Amino acid sequence: VDEVRAHLWQDFLRVRGQTDALCALLSPEDQQPQSFADASPTKWHRAHTSWFFETFLLLPAGDAPAHPAYQHLFNSYYDGVGSRHPRPQRGLLTRPGHDEVSAYRAHVDAGIERHLRTCTDAQLTALAPLVRLGLAHEEQHQELIVTDALHLLSHNPLRPALQPLLQPETPSAPAKAPADAAWIEHPGGLVVVGRDLPAFDLVFDNEGPAHKVWLEPFALAGALVTVAALRAFLDAGGYRDPSLWLAAGFDQVQRLGLSAPLYHRRREDDGALLAFTVQGERVLHDDEPLVHLSFFEADALARFLGARLPTEAEWEVVARAFVSDAERARAGVTVVGGALSLLLPPVGGPGFFGVAWQWTQSSYGPYPGFAPAAGVVGEYNGKFMVGQQVLRGSSSYSPRGHGRSTYRNFWPPATRFQAAGLRLCRQL
Amino acid sequence: VDEVRAHLWQDFLRVRGQTDALCALLSPEDQQPQSFADASPTKWHRAHTSWFFETFLLLPAGDAPAHPAYQHLFNSYYDGVGSRHPRPQRGLLTRPGHDEVSAYRAHVDAGIERHLRTCTDAQLTALAPLVRLGLAHEEQHQELIVTDALHLLSHNPLRPALQPLLQPETPSAPAKAPADAAWIEHPGGLVVVGRDLPAFDLVFDNEGPAHKVWLEPFALAGALVTVAALRAFLDAGGYRDPSLWLAAGFDQVQRLGLSAPLYHRRREDDGALLAFTVQGERVLHDDEPLVHLSFFEADALARFLGARLPTEAEWEVVARAFVSDAERARAGVTVVGGALSLLLPPVGGPGFFGVAWQWTQSSYGPYPGFAPAAGVVGEYNGKFMVGQQVLRGSSSYSPRGHGRSTYRNFWPPATRFQAAGLRLCRQL
Amino acid sequence: VDEVRAHLWQDFLRVRGQTDALCALLSPEDQQPQSFADASPTKWHRAHTSWFFETFLLLPAGDAPAHPAYQHLFNSYYDGVGSRHPRPQRGLLTRPGHDEVSAYRAHVDAGIERHLRTCTDAQLTALAPLVRLGLAHEEQHQELIVTDALHLLSHNPLRPALQPLLQPETPSAPAKAPADAAWIEHPGGLVVVGRDLPAFDLVFDNEGPAHKVWLEPFALAGALVTVAALRAFLDAGGYRDPSLWLAAGFDQVQRLGLSAPLYHRRREDDGALLAFTVQGERVLHDDEPLVHLSFFEADALARFLGARLPTEAEWEVVARAFVSDAERARAGVTVVGGALSLLLPPVGGPGFFGVAWQWTQSSYGPYPGFAPAAGVVGEYNGKFMVGQQVLRGSSSYSPRGHGRSTYRNFWPPATRFQAAGLRLCRQL
Amino acid sequence: VDEVRAHLWQDFLRVRGQTDALCALLSPEDQQPQSFADASPTKWHRAHTSWFFETFLLLPAGDAPAHPAYQHLFNSYYDGVGSRHPRPQRGLLTRPGHDEVSAYRAHVDAGIERHLRTCTDAQLTALAPLVRLGLAHEEQHQELIVTDALHLLSHNPLRPALQPLLQPETPSAPAKAPADAAWIEHPGGLVVVGRDLPAFDLVFDNEGPAHKVWLEPFALAGALVTVAALRAFLDAGGYRDPSLWLAAGFDQVQRLGLSAPLYHRRREDDGALLAFTVQGERVLHDDEPLVHLSFFEADALARFLGARLPTEAEWEVVARAFVSDAERARAGVTVVGGALSLLLPPVGGPGFFGVAWQWTQSSYGPYPGFAPAAGVVGEYNGKFMVGQQVLRGSSSYSPRGHGRSTYRNFWPPATRFQAAGLRLCRQL
Repeated sequence: VDEVRAHLWQDFLRVRGQTDALCALLSPEDQQPQSFADASPTKWHRAHTSWFFETFLLLPAGDAPAHPAYQHLFNSYYDGVGSRHPRPQRGLLTRPGHDEVSAYRAHVDAGIERHLRTCTDAQLTALAPLVRLGLAHEEQHQELIVTDALHLLSHNPLRPALQPLLQPETPSAPAKAPADAAWIEHPGGLVVVGRDLPAFDLVFDNEGPAHKVWLEPFALAGALVTVAALRAFLDAGGYRDPSLWLAAGFDQVQRLGLSAPLYHRRREDDGALLAFTVQGERVLHDDEPLVHLSFFEADALARFLGARLPTEAEWEVVARAFVSDAERARAGVTVVGGALSLLLPPVGGPGFFGVAWQWTQSSYGPYPGFAPAAGVVGEYNGKFMVGQQVLRGSSSYSPRGHGRSTYRNFWPPATRFQAAGLRLCRQL
Repeated sequence: VDEVRAHLWQDFLRVRGQTDALCALLSPEDQQPQSFADASPTKWHRAHTSWFFETFLLLPAGDAPAHPAYQHLFNSYYDGVGSRHPRPQRGLLTRPGHDEVSAYRAHVDAGIERHLRTCTDAQLTALAPLVRLGLAHEEQHQELIVTDALHLLSHNPLRPALQPLLQPETPSAPAKAPADAAWIEHPGGLVVVGRDLPAFDLVFDNEGPAHKVWLEPFALAGALVTVAALRAFLDAGGYRDPSLWLAAGFDQVQRLGLSAPLYHRRREDDGALLAFTVQGERVLHDDEPLVHLSFFEADALARFLGARLPTEAEWEVVARAFVSDAERARAGVTVVGGALSLLLPPVGGPGFFGVAWQWTQSSYGPYPGFAPAAGVVGEYNGKFMVGQQVLRGSSSYSPRGHGRSTYRNFWPPATRFQAAGLRLCRQL
Repeated sequence: VDEVRAHLWQDFLRVRGQTDALCALLSPEDQQPQSFADASPTKWHRAHTSWFFETFLLLPAGDAPAHPAYQHLFNSYYDGVGSRHPRPQRGLLTRPGHDEVSAYRAHVDAGIERHLRTCTDAQLTALAPLVRLGLAHEEQHQELIVTDALHLLSHNPLRPALQPLLQPETPSAPAKAPADAAWIEHPGGLVVVGRDLPAFDLVFDNEGPAHKVWLEPFALAGALVTVAALRAFLDAGGYRDPSLWLAAGFDQVQRLGLSAPLYHRRREDDGALLAFTVQGERVLHDDEPLVHLSFFEADALARFLGARLPTEAEWEVVARAFVSDAERARAGVTVVGGALSLLLPPVGGPGFFGVAWQWTQSSYGPYPGFAPAAGVVGEYNGKFMVGQQVLRGSSSYSPRGHGRSTYRNFWPPATRFQAAGLRLCRQL
Repeated sequence: VDEVRAHLWQDFLRVRGQTDALCALLSPEDQQPQSFADASPTKWHRAHTSWFFETFLLLPAGDAPAHPAYQHLFNSYYDGVGSRHPRPQRGLLTRPGHDEVSAYRAHVDAGIERHLRTCTDAQLTALAPLVRLGLAHEEQHQELIVTDALHLLSHNPLRPALQPLLQPETPSAPAKAPADAAWIEHPGGLVVVGRDLPAFDLVFDNEGPAHKVWLEPFALAGALVTVAALRAFLDAGGYRDPSLWLAAGFDQVQRLGLSAPLYHRRREDDGALLAFTVQGERVLHDDEPLVHLSFFEADALARFLGARLPTEAEWEVVARAFVSDAERARAGVTVVGGALSLLLPPVGGPGFFGVAWQWTQSSYGPYPGFAPAAGVVGEYNGKFMVGQQVLRGSSSYSPRGHGRSTYRNFWPPATRFQAAGLRLCRQL
């Protein structure tokens, strides 16, 4: 049991430290605004992830609140724990300041350390899953910190890089797509999807129960769709051809006057494709995977390419069979020595994890027999089960080791600011 | 073959005549405005249903257009046939007037009659499915004419009835729910859902292909949820309790300040539940089925009642097994002698058809192997397959005989003006 | 006194009859919608002008209301007489229908006739000014019926004419601007502006009290600005040059993407200037006066032409001195034999009345010593005295004889759908 | 001439230093967001006031720009000097950061110092008015820094004070309004208003030319309207009585659901009037002058009190006659020793300057013969001359010494966040 305590504390330190290291890339000013209503300031992310531990662990254990107003200010969407500050006004909370939020984080860290050290073994059994949930929750916010900051910086005509010195590790493979980029065939039939709640490991409630799904034979692409496909789509006038789009998608295109994915543009003089990235704006190469697609764009590209999006069940059974644990564990971002360290997978590699979330044609809903977790944490996933599409895998902004083959990410189909791409599927 | 011609023409006359009889309940002024962007004026419905036959049958056969501008004015959403008038401005089209639209309908009727009479047998084979599609399309608009007119009239403080003399036929059964209102159990397993395109009958493309689905054991309620449940929900403060709602649903409740379903209100003096109906505003009885629920309201009521919404597959396999063709054919509305004739099913009866569309928890998407029909008619269903929920059955405003156990109706989850209700489901 | 009764009744019949004749140009469908929130349906104008007589004359005299709901439905903005139907929803009131509104008008006419015939001489003294106010009010709505209908029809791709057969009477003067189009100089000094309430004639309360104003020497143009000036403005890129505009005006230009006044466009092939008018769309000639300008456009054109807009005092002292009563009485529209009869003034004539309302640089406010009329009719003018600009003169849609040199029309500066033009002014 | 250089440089140092001292009350985070589209971040104010000197003095003199992007980022509304960053997105400019903006200020200060020291006497003649304009401009922004920060902080549930230690100097007079609070009568007649451009002192272009205005006899209140009047207005249901309001004002009240001026609320338990101020939220006393009124509220209060707002000419002739230069010079805010030093005038004193801007019934327009200054600085005032109301005097947030009897402040009538109050006027 002491090993469990030690292990939990070690994980706690690691994940919390990654948040701090990541946020150190951003100035107090960078951490203040929110660039649209569904984004949050970095400072708020830092406070909210601490609020989560305080609310679901420290307060129930009898600790006094760090500040009487923080319960209200840093609640995201939990109706069961009281009122909350209006989401679109998070960027106006200049107080508490950057340093006060750092103090709040330290206060919460100390509380968790104390509880982990002093609780009984029985208490530990109840505590541990909540700590793990809190860490998984904080890892999700680490990704949001990147995507929200990228969105904020993209509004600045100075086109600042989130981190000017960032260098992705050199791809270890040639630019040509290797043989394993070919289609991966699956015979279909009755398969099991999802995972029941394990005793010791964290799985979000929406990943279960494990259940049977009937699949027709299909094939899944062995690599993600790349910039070359976008170039062909643009050259073919894809953004002006309604026959390639779902009606709601083409509505968005026309209403917003879209002619490329978010952050992407064509340079006027030479037609090169540029994207605004964590490294600032840069020229894209044809064999890079596409990111920052909306579901509508992913769906239109798939149709343009004569294929379709996979269902989440199709994606999962293939990912489970073809991706090694080692590959999965290697994917994702860490901060090392004050710099983002992106371990990009080999160009042309399968890219199930650590490159781009992959839109599916499955809308986000409950699995058969799903019941939300008891208590307030039951608000974590279940109440969002309408009007969103499932994404699978993980992205290059996801924390290293955060991916799972049963993991269900979800966003509304119009969402453009997430690191989402596309893997093709077709019927056999 | 001559029998096919005769039969088609008879059907054509019947359906077109029903539209005319229905619209005769409304004055030229009633037929002019649209009360919100997604509604259409009655006059426009009358013209658009004629445009459908002209565009997909008469013009391809070489007929001259009735008017050069009608192709633009009365196109609903078909990108493949050219431009269209902005949807929110349909209510501003005072020209052509009521009588000119009647003349347009007569012109199209004459064209169809001529083609059905003079075409070769080979041509007839191609023509017949399009005529049947056009008639099914017109029947869908007959229901919209009622729901759009009800919405329009609801804005008038005079609270006019769509038809003051309307009398529903006397329910043939006692007010007590009969035994068949109990739960209908299903053992689950691998079932077949949907229907392949038949040779002779009309099935919309989105109803196929027939395909296998795995179901866990479940039970479906033998009757629709009634006004009594709404009363209990209101008494329990349901509209103020976020734990009963999906997050997007509670957002809508708060943003619009909702405290009851559309058209419903509680009378201040005695607390009676009133609803604005085609008969004007009237007191509701506890054993009437609920209608005009949004998906969010249906979902919240199901949760309040300790159950859930069925999936569309669950609904379909039970409806196929338990509803006789005769019952289905009897359901729905006709216009007889200048009055709507609602043949309501027995109170407390199963109510799969002819009472209220039933929201499912299934989002509207393509069945495995779905491909839209070739050509422009392929825009009919496929391009709306995102962000909507499937409804099954049919309503009391659906034309008599329009229901099918494989029929997939779909609306966004926030939709409140459709005649939609709720049938409970639970896991076994 | 009997002469007063007869004269009033004659005026009543004439003005009410003009409304009926004007509306007969529009079908029941044309009379139903409103094309934007600040417009009203023709049918509503017809009912509201009757409501005015009923509310301020018949009901106070003890008559029973024609219908219990009409007080609510047809109140425009009088808080003092009770609730009112939301303005943007006037177009949804399909009931009462066209014929019921005609019956309402006849009912009110009969009531007024009876009261005028039977009241005592003392009552007549109180009644007469209210009848005259009601008629002046109805004349204002006659102009709005034209401008609102023009706006509605402009949304129809069929580009229907309000009256296809409309023929303006032939201009009685040559197309060349005559000598009196030169600048009219005024030496300035202390002048009297406005008019005190006369005993027998109608003057709106906002036209008084008469008061002194000091003017510096100035010159007012002897003719209105014409299409030729707009052509020069467009050729010079006027809609893209912020230095010509007030900031709020250029904001509107950019927000709405304006490149010409409302209803105006340049034909692509030959660059001809076209305008949508009561006669449908037609080519404009260089020597026609400009109409349908916003204040912002009038101001920008004046700046472009090296001049400025006059103040309302400058306009008034010149109009009073230079326009004969005969000229003024001749100006404006009537309906004769089922057709609008526009007696247009000589092209190049002074055009103070009957051509286009003339924007001034004066914002609409109270004259020194102004007090609203007592009672509810005091809401007629005073409560709108902020955020609007004064227009002077009258337009070709104003009823014949409606103009006065002290008359103060007013609209927000962004208003584009009124028949407003521009007369230049400059300092001497 | 050397004295002119020295004096200018001294003024420059003083005004720029006041900005720095004022902003030192706010953290880098406080200086980042904008709480509504028409507010600006403190950081942006600091940069923009420096941009003004750089753009209109340093660049024309041949200096290189401090940064190529600053011309775009910190331009407020000058179309004549190129593009500008969208106003509602100023709060998203996290780069340049707080310290970089401080460096920009120092860079501009050094440039001005160098030019003042090295320019010829002839150049100085051209330079001096621009420096004075830049300083007057910076003083205007000092007031905006306070009002914008107050608005930002008011959104924070912590209700932080702009400066917790702020202590207004003790009022030097008793709480009872002295005799000079009585009405100040003026006989009217032909008066001169405004001021021609002087040779040596700064007067904004919109304050001239001096011109004659005819006034009827009137009386102006000798003190500002106080909290006691607001209490009476609230008690009388003033926010629910349309007869007290201009129509556009009552529209705003209903649309926003207003029941008190901005920042004001009634405490539920004891009905005390509270206001959010630079000192945080505090209880108001009956004899304090009202601030943070919109024009609509000021106008309604005047009507409620049986009076009216003055015209700007009425205000000016009285202020000129009754306010000593010493009194005027004493009014306004400075920052001393890291704290705002508000020298509030005696309670019940005349309060023409240094307490609250005073709404007039005059809309903001050009004086007769007005012509904007030549060049880009001509955009300073003229292009806003529509849709706004003039305010006179100065407020407790105005920099000390900034007031003038001819000074014309202007805001749209719906503006609620400015330190604006009300002085009554009535006809004699």
